[in-house]
Amino acid sequence: MTGITKDHPRYESLITREKIVEGVNMGITSKQGLVAQGRGEAFDYILGEKTIESAAIAERAAVAYILLAKNPIISVNGNTGALVPDQLVSLADITGARLEVNLFHRSDARVHKITEHLKAHGAGVVLGGKGDKRLDLSHDRAIVDEEGIFSADVVLVPLEDGDRCQKLVEMGKTVITIDLNPLSRTSLTSTVTIVDNVTRALNNMIQFTKDMKGGSKDSLQAVIDAYDNDRVISDALYSMQEHLKNKAEEKGITWI
Amino acid sequence: MTGITKDHPRYESLITREKIVEGVNMGITSKQGLVAQGRGEAFDYILGEKTIESAAIAERAAVAYILLAKNPIISVNGNTGALVPDQLVSLADITGARLEVNLFHRSDARVHKITEHLKAHGAGVVLGGKGDKRLDLSHDRAIVDEEGIFSADVVLVPLEDGDRCQKLVEMGKTVITIDLNPLSRTSLTSTVTIVDNVTRALNNMIQFTKDMKGGSKDSLQAVIDAYDNDRVISDALYSMQEHLKNKAEEKGITWI
Repeated sequence: MTGITKDHPRYESLITREKIVEGVNMGITSKQGLVAQGRGEAFDYILGEKTIESAAIAERAAVAYILLAKNPIISVNGNTGALVPDQLVSLADITGARLEVNLFHRSDARVHKITEHLKAHGAGVVLGGKGDKRLDLSHDRAIVDEEGIFSADVVLVPLEDGDRCQKLVEMGKTVITIDLNPLSRTSLTSTVTIVDNVTRALNNMIQFTKDMKGGSKDSLQAVIDAYDNDRVISDALYSMQEHLKNKAEEKGITWI
Repeated sequence: MTGITKDHPRYESLITREKIVEGVNMGITSKQGLVAQGRGEAFDYILGEKTIESAAIAERAAVAYILLAKNPIISVNGNTGALVPDQLVSLADITGARLEVNLFHRSDARVHKITEHLKAHGAGVVLGGKGDKRLDLSHDRAIVDEEGIFSADVVLVPLEDGDRCQKLVEMGKTVITIDLNPLSRTSLTSTVTIVDNVTRALNNMIQFTKDMKGGSKDSLQAVIDAYDNDRVISDALYSMQEHLKNKAEEKGITWI
């Protein structure tokens, strides 16, 4: 890691970048994953690098769906494996969901490395190594475990490809995504779209699970029934616009 | 290169991504450069992946400055070396500017590789290897050639760090930057801020140089005198906002 001091205004963002570069060095993250990280950074910058209120609402709805699910699965790729292994393991533990490694640029070696990495961070069972079922997709994210994503009723897919998201929704699953671009195909297709940085989102979801876990099924269902995903997406766009406007004004640039 | 077909809606963007990954494989681009590429991709997506009118105005002003300069230098880093070597060489040729390699993550090996890469693409003189002067900065972009960036009156720095940009401006130089984030320190500090993708910007500047080169000094000066950088930045922000709004409406998302 490079010497980034805590007083740097963009400390969190820079540390995240270092972690993902480290993921590439460890063979967990693909080089394309670094580009994806950069895309996320830019959208997060526009969002103000904070959890907006509508994202917190989406995170609570996501937790409600996971807690009510029969077979909830958390999909892990090379970026989340490198960035948030502890949070993935904690969220799985506390909700009872299972982790499944699923990669766009798949190789047995990478699946194995990510699995071992998650186990080193405390994970028990990690699915994804069998790959005994295929979704109807032309790339490697098609390869899933029968007992995992294939038969899951709720799938949390932080940092997702649009076409797999669409496929999972078509299969009748509840799909929860974490995507900083509110207009991506993933965001527009998901059941629950969390427009937030993946580190913040998972930290929040762990906290919300602690708060909500003791509640009745009815109270969790009520959270789901009150949830409006289109409104969440509209609000994320509005928040981005507002943040840019405030930033521009702060810097003396006329907003036209 | 992966098999990306020309009919893909985001063909140009995906090819650019492949080129930059190839740059890392060649030892020209740093891994951090891939993250920077992703940031640019996101801002370009928000801009609509096209040259907006105000960017073309900035590109014309930039050409006027370069054509009137005594010692214009085009700074090359690991991203532009990988992405646009042909355009850098052409622009230097046609304007009479010289190329200088200047890296944030500097090593002699990388400076050498980028120099050789530019020469393989037709460059004559490539500065940056001497590094016989320092700017007052704490990182490696401080290292410059005395006959190059140090004594230049006009510096074109596509994809720049904010603090070097500021330093060059403080030294009294005309600084032209290409940066897709209109609110970055670089964009706000530069003499001419081109909010455009680096490939499109350089292609345009080569064309504009052909158009403008035969003109009188007075006509070039008139282009500079009429130029308003703050207006260009305001317009870029406005264009991003409009593009997001149109995109949202097209996708049936309410704009609030």
